[in-house]
Formats: sequence, C-alpha cells, structure tokens
Amino acid sequence: MQRVNFDHIAETVSNWGRWGDVDARGTLNHIGPEALLRGASCVTTGKAFALGLPLDQNGPQLNGYRFNPRLYATALGTPLGPQTTACYSDDVIHMPLQSATHWDALSHVHYDGMMYNGCTAATCLNPGGASHNGVEHLARDGIASRGILLDIARLKNVDELPADYGVTVDDLRAACEREGVIVEAGDVVLVRTGHLRSFTLCGDRERFNGLQAGLLPETAEWLFDRSVAAVAADNLAVEFVGPETLSGEVALPLHMLCIRDMGMPLGEMFDLEALAADCAQDGRYAFLLSAPPLGVTGAFGAPTNPMALK
Amino acid sequence: MQRVNFDHIAETVSNWGRWGDVDARGTLNHIGPEALLRGASCVTTGKAFALGLPLDQNGPQLNGYRFNPRLYATALGTPLGPQTTACYSDDVIHMPLQSATHWDALSHVHYDGMMYNGCTAATCLNPGGASHNGVEHLARDGIASRGILLDIARLKNVDELPADYGVTVDDLRAACEREGVIVEAGDVVLVRTGHLRSFTLCGDRERFNGLQAGLLPETAEWLFDRSVAAVAADNLAVEFVGPETLSGEVALPLHMLCIRDMGMPLGEMFDLEALAADCAQDGRYAFLLSAPPLGVTGAFGAPTNPMALK
Amino acid sequence: MQRVNFDHIAETVSNWGRWGDVDARGTLNHIGPEALLRGASCVTTGKAFALGLPLDQNGPQLNGYRFNPRLYATALGTPLGPQTTACYSDDVIHMPLQSATHWDALSHVHYDGMMYNGCTAATCLNPGGASHNGVEHLARDGIASRGILLDIARLKNVDELPADYGVTVDDLRAACEREGVIVEAGDVVLVRTGHLRSFTLCGDRERFNGLQAGLLPETAEWLFDRSVAAVAADNLAVEFVGPETLSGEVALPLHMLCIRDMGMPLGEMFDLEALAADCAQDGRYAFLLSAPPLGVTGAFGAPTNPMALK
Amino acid sequence: MQRVNFDHIAETVSNWGRWGDVDARGTLNHIGPEALLRGASCVTTGKAFALGLPLDQNGPQLNGYRFNPRLYATALGTPLGPQTTACYSDDVIHMPLQSATHWDALSHVHYDGMMYNGCTAATCLNPGGASHNGVEHLARDGIASRGILLDIARLKNVDELPADYGVTVDDLRAACEREGVIVEAGDVVLVRTGHLRSFTLCGDRERFNGLQAGLLPETAEWLFDRSVAAVAADNLAVEFVGPETLSGEVALPLHMLCIRDMGMPLGEMFDLEALAADCAQDGRYAFLLSAPPLGVTGAFGAPTNPMALK
Repeated sequence: MQRVNFDHIAETVSNWGRWGDVDARGTLNHIGPEALLRGASCVTTGKAFALGLPLDQNGPQLNGYRFNPRLYATALGTPLGPQTTACYSDDVIHMPLQSATHWDALSHVHYDGMMYNGCTAATCLNPGGASHNGVEHLARDGIASRGILLDIARLKNVDELPADYGVTVDDLRAACEREGVIVEAGDVVLVRTGHLRSFTLCGDRERFNGLQAGLLPETAEWLFDRSVAAVAADNLAVEFVGPETLSGEVALPLHMLCIRDMGMPLGEMFDLEALAADCAQDGRYAFLLSAPPLGVTGAFGAPTNPMALK
Repeated sequence: MQRVNFDHIAETVSNWGRWGDVDARGTLNHIGPEALLRGASCVTTGKAFALGLPLDQNGPQLNGYRFNPRLYATALGTPLGPQTTACYSDDVIHMPLQSATHWDALSHVHYDGMMYNGCTAATCLNPGGASHNGVEHLARDGIASRGILLDIARLKNVDELPADYGVTVDDLRAACEREGVIVEAGDVVLVRTGHLRSFTLCGDRERFNGLQAGLLPETAEWLFDRSVAAVAADNLAVEFVGPETLSGEVALPLHMLCIRDMGMPLGEMFDLEALAADCAQDGRYAFLLSAPPLGVTGAFGAPTNPMALK
Repeated sequence: MQRVNFDHIAETVSNWGRWGDVDARGTLNHIGPEALLRGASCVTTGKAFALGLPLDQNGPQLNGYRFNPRLYATALGTPLGPQTTACYSDDVIHMPLQSATHWDALSHVHYDGMMYNGCTAATCLNPGGASHNGVEHLARDGIASRGILLDIARLKNVDELPADYGVTVDDLRAACEREGVIVEAGDVVLVRTGHLRSFTLCGDRERFNGLQAGLLPETAEWLFDRSVAAVAADNLAVEFVGPETLSGEVALPLHMLCIRDMGMPLGEMFDLEALAADCAQDGRYAFLLSAPPLGVTGAFGAPTNPMALK
Repeated sequence: MQRVNFDHIAETVSNWGRWGDVDARGTLNHIGPEALLRGASCVTTGKAFALGLPLDQNGPQLNGYRFNPRLYATALGTPLGPQTTACYSDDVIHMPLQSATHWDALSHVHYDGMMYNGCTAATCLNPGGASHNGVEHLARDGIASRGILLDIARLKNVDELPADYGVTVDDLRAACEREGVIVEAGDVVLVRTGHLRSFTLCGDRERFNGLQAGLLPETAEWLFDRSVAAVAADNLAVEFVGPETLSGEVALPLHMLCIRDMGMPLGEMFDLEALAADCAQDGRYAFLLSAPPLGVTGAFGAPTNPMALK
C-alpha cells in the first residue's frame, strides 16, 4: 500500500493515548458491562460452538518458519507409587504462538519503529518477549463480549471467496443489513471468507498459506467508527493478501492500522464453519463470544479456543 | 487409600458405557442447552473474570520434572519487505501441558491398566499422545456451562485452608447452603481452598507444590449424584494431598475416581481470588463459565484461560 | 528380508554376552590402545577434516516426523551489568537426535522385543529415554580409533551409486584391495556411496530421504569377522534402502544385525566428500578418526562432529 | 574491571584483521599441520579420555535461565512395518547451547557494540542466531591440535582452588615448568581448577554456579604471546568470577579479551579429572585434543564431547 493513502487512514483511526499512556488492551477497552450483557442476552437456544482448530502435526502450518505443534509425552502410564496400579501420563508442547487459531498481540507488528500507544520497538522487543503490549494484557481480563458473524462468503453466495477478493466496507455494510445486525461498541466481529476450507476440507496447505481473500485496509475505519473491540476471521491474516500486500511502502496495512494504530487485536484462523451454518439456519448472527488468549507473558500472540454461545 | 474402600466408591460412580462405547467427553455430556442457558441467565452485571495464571518463568512449577513455560522470540521487529518500515515479531512456546491453569484430560491417569470407558492404557498411550481420551475431545465442543463457586476457605473463615485439611461432603453441602446455591446437572463446580495464595501472594513454590488441602475421595459420590460436568480448584490437584496420597494401594484416589471412573475432567490451579471476592460481595456464587481447553490432539491435559461471566 | 535368511546371519554375528552381561558399548570394545595408536600413526600430513553437516533449518530432514534443528536466541546483546558496555548472547536448540550427522545408539532399534545384550525393550524404553543401551555408553569413553574410508562410489567410477544399488561384501573387499588397506580389529569403517550429494549438492531432500544405495545385510558378517568397531556412511541409514527394506519379515535388516545383534553403532549422514577427495589424491585411506557422540543420557542416538585426521 | 586497565590489555591482544576482514575462526587459525602433528606425536600409550559431561536433567545448570537438557522420546519401540517384529525408537532434545561442556562462539560476547573482527553487534545478532561469528565457523574445520593440561589445582597441592583464587600468569608459567611443557603456537590449553568437583563430586549446583576460581584477565596476554589456539577449563566461565566480575566497567573481562579481541574460543565445563589423574601418573601433560563443537549455524556456542588422546 502506498504510504500517503495509508497515513490518511492511520491518522483517523489512531487510539494512542485514548485509554492512558500505559494502556496495552487497546480496543478491548470498548468492552464494558453493556457489551457483555448484550452478548449474554443472545444466548437463547443453549448451543455452543468451539472455534479453535486442533493443535497437532496436521495443522495448517507449512512446517517451515512456523511449524505445527509438537507434543511430547514425558510420562506414559508411570506408576504413582510402589504399591499401586494407579498411573499417570504427562506431556509437553512446543509450538509457535502464531500457529492455528490465535490472537495477534499488540506487540506483533509495528512500523516507523513504534508499537501501539507509542512504545519504542527497539527497547520493547526482547528474545524472551515484549516488555510492553504483550498478549498477557489481552488475557488478564480476557475477551468476552457480544460476537457478530459477518458471513461475506454467504453474502456472495459462494463457499469460499476467490483468493483475489478484497472485502470492502460496502460488503461489511451489506452483510449487516442482510443479517439484520447492527454492530455496536464493544462487539467482536468475526468475518467469514470461507478460506479456511482450503485447509480444513481440501487439506491444501500451500493454498491456505498463499494469496487470499480478506479485509481491505479501508475497513479499519469502519471498525474504528463502530468502536469494535476486536476482529477475527477464518483466514491466515484477517486482511486481504494480494501480490503486493507484503511489498510496497506499507506491508500488511490492515495489521498496521488495527494492531499498531487502533490497538485492535486480530484473531486468525477461527474455524467459523459450524457456527456459520447454524447462523444461516436460524438467522441469528449475534452470540456471546468468549475467546480469551492464553496469558503468555510478553508473547506476540497466543492461542485461543473461542466459544460462541447462542 | 485402601483398595477396598476405594473400590466401593468406584463402582458407585462409574460412567463407563453411559454415553456409548467410544465416548471420550465423560461428564461433559451432562452439559446440555439447559445448563448453558442456566449459566447465561447468571450474567446480570456484566462483570468478567479471567481465571488463568500467567504463563511464564515465574509460574508455580518448581522447574524440575514439570517446568515453567519458556517463550522464545523467532522474529524481533523483522521488516516485512525491502521498502517498508512495517515489521513483525513472532515467538514459540515450550511448556508442559500440566503446568499452570489447565484441565486434566481423561487420559491423564488410570489404574488396573484401563483408562476411562474401558480403553487399554498400554495400547492407547504413545510418545506422541493418547489415541483415546485425549484432551481434543474436551476441546472440540468446549466447556461452557453454569459455574458454581464453592468457597470452602470462606466457609471456614480462613484465607487458606490448613494444608492438612481434607474437604468433606459436609463442607460442600454447607457451602451450598451458605451461598444459597443448588448444584444441578451440567454445572461446573469451582472449589476454593485458598491454597493458590501460597504461590500468588507468598511466592512459595515449595509450599504450593507440597501437601495441601483439597477434596477428599468421598466427594466423588457427591459430584456424581449431582451430575456435575467438571470440577476445578485453586490448588495443584483438586484433591487433598496428604502424606499418604501418593503411597498406599490407590494413589491420587480422587483423580482415579473422577477421571478414570466417572470421566470427569479436573481443572487445576484456577485463580479464584478475584472471582471469590466479587461473589462474597454480591452474594451471587453462580455465573456463566466458559473454560475450553486448547485442543491439543492426544494430549493428557491442556491449558485454559477460563472466563467467569456474571 | 525373509526371517529365515536373516536369522542365519544373526546367529553368526551375535555379540550378546561377549563383553559381559551389562555391557552397553558393544563393538566399541574392539577399540583398544593398539587401534588408537594405529590410527594416530596415520597422522602424517597434519590435515583435518570435520565430517559433520551444519545443524540448521537447511538440513536434510523433510520437516515431518524428523525436523531440522531450531535455534532460539534467549539473550541478544544483553548488557552484563549496569555500568558496562559488555554484553552477552545465549541460545537454545531443539532438534531430533537422529537428524543430520549422528550415531545410532544400541537402543535405537530392536526386534523380537529384545535390544542388544538381552535387554527387554518393554522395560528399557521410556519417554525420557532408554534405561539401557543409551548413547551415553558410547559417549563416556568416546569413539577414537583408526578410520578407514571405503569409497565404493569411486570404486564404481561414479559420483553417486545408483539408488537401487546394494553394496556387497565383494565391493568392500575390492575397495580394500584398490585402496591398499586391510581392515583390522577396532577400526571404524566409513563407507562412501556418494548419496549425500543428492542433498549437499542438489538440495533434493525428497531424493535424499528416499530409496538409496547402502550396505546389504550380508556385509554384517564381513564387519563382524574383522572385529570392526563401528560403521558409518554418507547416506541416511548406512544400509541399502530398497522398496522392501521397510516391509517384509525383517525391516531394516542391517540395523537389526549391527545394532541389536552385534552391538555395533551406525553412523549416518557423515559428510565424506572432502575427505574422499583427499584420500583419492594422496592414496591414503586410513586416518585417525575421533567421533564421539554427545553424551545425552538415555538417548537413542546423538549428534557428532567427527574429525578425520591425516 | 576498570576500563583503563582493560583497554591496555585489549590493545595488546587484538587480532582484528590479522586473518582477513571476514575471518570468524580467530585464534583457531594458529592451528596448522605442525600443531596437529605435534599433537598426534603425543599419542604413545593409546589411552583415550572423553571430557564431556553427561547431558541430562542432572546436569550442572540451576534450571533457571539456563536449564539442563531435556530429552523427549518421539517413538518408543514403534514397529517398522506390519509384518515385522523390528522396531525403532527416536527422540528429540531441547537444551541451551551454553549448558554443560561447550565452546563459546566468537559471537557469544561483545562490548562497545562490536564483536570480534569488527562486526557490529546490532546488525549481526538475530533471534535465529548470529549472522557473523557463529559457532559453525569453529565447527567447519573443527578443533584438533595438541592439548596441554595446566593443572593449577595440583600445582597448589589442592583438590580444588579456593573460590576466591584468581589464576595468575606466574601460575601458568609455574605449571608449565613443573609439568615440563612448553606451550607452542596452535596448542589448546586446558586449565584445571578443580572447581568442577563441586558439581561432579558434591552435587552442589549453587556452589558450582557461584563465585569461583579461574584465570585472571592478565593471562590473556600470556595466551596471546604464545599464539594459543583456544583455552578451556573445568569451571563455569574459564575466568575468575569474583564479586566484581559481573559489575564494574568491564564485566567478564577475560571473556571480552579472549572472545571479542583475540577471537579465541573459550571451552567451559570440561571434565578434566580422569585426564589429570593420568597426566599426574605418567608425567605427560601433552596429548592430541580433538574437540570440535557441533556445527549449529549461527549459534553463540555449541556442545562438544572433547577427546584427549595420549
């Protein structure tokens, strides 16, 4: 993206200082009792959907730079004592914190040397994690609010959006209208592109990790204007990834606008298929979403197993 | 515990076959739409409590067999392209799945060579995880239901129960009565002993990992009779750990009864302090609990950052 | 391989009990002062060759079950004190012990439920390693003796043996004759097939990890008769890997004969190219080989950076 | 150490540019054919000593910042095929590269923002390792030369030097004289303080990791003058660690002089006890030392299992 166009949006959506100089929760501050109560009031049929992908060697990562989780047993049916048949088994995991279903922390990306809320990247980023904007700030009070599914694939009457399709503000508006929802302050927006199916149904990791449909940078303003608390999607990066998304003057522009300027966590690889099918069936696209990340101190992101409760 | 006494309870509480031969969710099957709706109806003030401990080197593990999570940055402010100031940071984690706040899976313990629902331990337990009863079965549909805090420390008017105190069925009953709650089918019971304070307030890992207050084995029957979905506590092992808990004919008897015979997940090291203070203040000890584990395929347990919503 | 043919060789080459009931060094016992002195006497020009592959993400593993080593910095230019410009950097590694250049320990393979020297596999193999025949026994006194390069590729006038070529006893004899060497008790034999070039020169990991030239099972008798201390090669598995090597009644038969019956460590992925070129030039195929594995207690194998000194 | 005193030595011993602008092997360049042949000529009795500590959970690390190696089995007696009793076992390791017996790479420490040979630390140090001066440069051609044991503990007639004892140049000279050795260009010097016994014999990790005897900074000049190729010791840091070693204007001064200015690798936690006993017995303190580090690309250090051959 060209810097001049980017800067225009960035100025508009910046939340630096809005919640104080040391704030590290960003737009999660929009979640108040009202938003949570609004979410709880959506629980009317008692259905629960877990949106996290399985964490194992068959996950979506290509096993290069980011790999799929590795589990190692450390005890396998080890007796608990000399006189007992009682045994236990233990294990450890080794995994990238940006693999499978996860939240990007506000320390995950930056530009011009500054992270969200004016932290200097050079001094905040360390081999053991970030001293500011780590995911623990998102985890401490958690993420629970009303969730809204904006099913763009369904809006376009496709299973998956084409890889070269950028979701526009008009698409978001049209989805709201079609679904009969009004996004309010503190809501968490879940965007369905259908792209996850390239992995979950087709097992095509190359395609899943390649160019893909997602939100265009200008949607940041729409999210900002509605005081959305967080946005997640069923693709790799929430945002549209085209041939120029990683080159040009501003790489991953929506990441930069949301995470660095607005302080808005991005949720990636949320498995929205079953939830979307249910929403399509009963016509209710709002629910209670409880999706706290694990509280890994200093982490640039952390896995979550989000629950959508209807 | 003596085998003869143990077997008597074990026969009473066994759920093997109750939900079919291949069931691996155990008592989570008690959670139905009613329980979830009952939980959602408890959300009346819009308060949220995240119950997970921070995951870092300052955690409760003693760094011997089980250690505290290790975070490694794999990118630190790495530019996303040649022409951009946009940068990203990534990280990986290495951690025991039984560290900090977590659920024990139904594969975590067994006795007489058999796991929950009649699985043979020898064939189900592998270096890469359990082929049956792995935590993914608890994660797939998640854990969300009404939660009930039974604050035994408060019942006894202490900050922490003495280390040699075993919580009895009478204590559970008395707490219910005092709190004005009736535990119903599908509820998740959170037991507060105050023991976590030995770590969180005192930083005394040796004491936290030593002998400690917790549920006595006979409480398994009480949990069974009420069709409780899961039980968690603020100590290391949910159950009372006395000098003979790890010796004798049945080691960790409540683990064996709950996990292996009933198919009931145990939640350990839930940080209940802030939640308990709030419950004490407003007199409401019921809430919506959303506490899905991460879905690590084959794992003997998995971390969770539980949300209690009131 | 058919069991009946295999068993005939196995009986011939078994060393169980030869060095006592608790021996875990196997044929390394053939290395005595004579062998080491014989090796040292080969050091006449003062040339040194390190035979270990680099350990990094560009290694020969396919990143599935066995992956390439991962390095994580844990400190990056961290100041050592408040008043000093002196800084340090630290790191950790996570790697399979059977990746890149390594020795297989005597616990690495077994058949009929028994490991080398009559250890019962079921009781000796644990999630934290082997209680018997771990690589620490090979590491404690190390591996240093005369090394002999048998350059079979050169014998056949090819850069690489064809993938479907099994090296015979006659080939070994012919190489000795051509090179003017006589293999003696305690020597370590290095076999060059040229196969490593498929990775080091061509970067073709698929081919490198596929079917490949190597020693045929009957060469075990030749190694046994000469009291060879250990055998290593520049391929994945020392032995010939054809379409039936991993199926049939005895899988990886040379592994079974060498490691389980003879107690002979196998060295895999030794980079012999520069050494072979030098041997070809000066006509001297004997040298001092110092190739101790790292002493990882209980490990089924361990990396080594072997030194060939001429 | 005070900067003014330090700088005086630093100027004297600097090797920057001596072996070209891109050199990353430093004083290992002193090892030529002569040094290796001189070492080989010391092999007269055929004795071999492996100097590496076992790598396991019982190692010398305190399990805080640096921890002891963790081994995880990834296969345990897994059948190699459907028709065979042949099985294999595999494992992985996770360990700090500065734990147990290892070489510090030339990227391990720096001061004034510059590493050995004028590399800028800020640009060379990355989460995945060092782009310059990584340990792979020490591994590629390995480390094999004449080794000289300077047994300072024996010189002082003690099992262990007192913790507050700094080894002087006079001590090194006296040890040479007593042992009848003359250190020559390319030799590797092994200094015995006896300090490792605090761990290996007493199992006192706190003491082992505390203040300790070792080389004083001025010994750098002695090492420089003799064109020593590398220096190793049986303590934690080679150098004397007193109350002020980590404070003051120059922390770890010998590290800075050797690694950063001279380009001399430091070998730490070499187990010299058995070797020293043998040297004392036969009066021969020179031997062939083969001690290549593992070739971990970009690493700040790497383990070695050194072989001393006499």
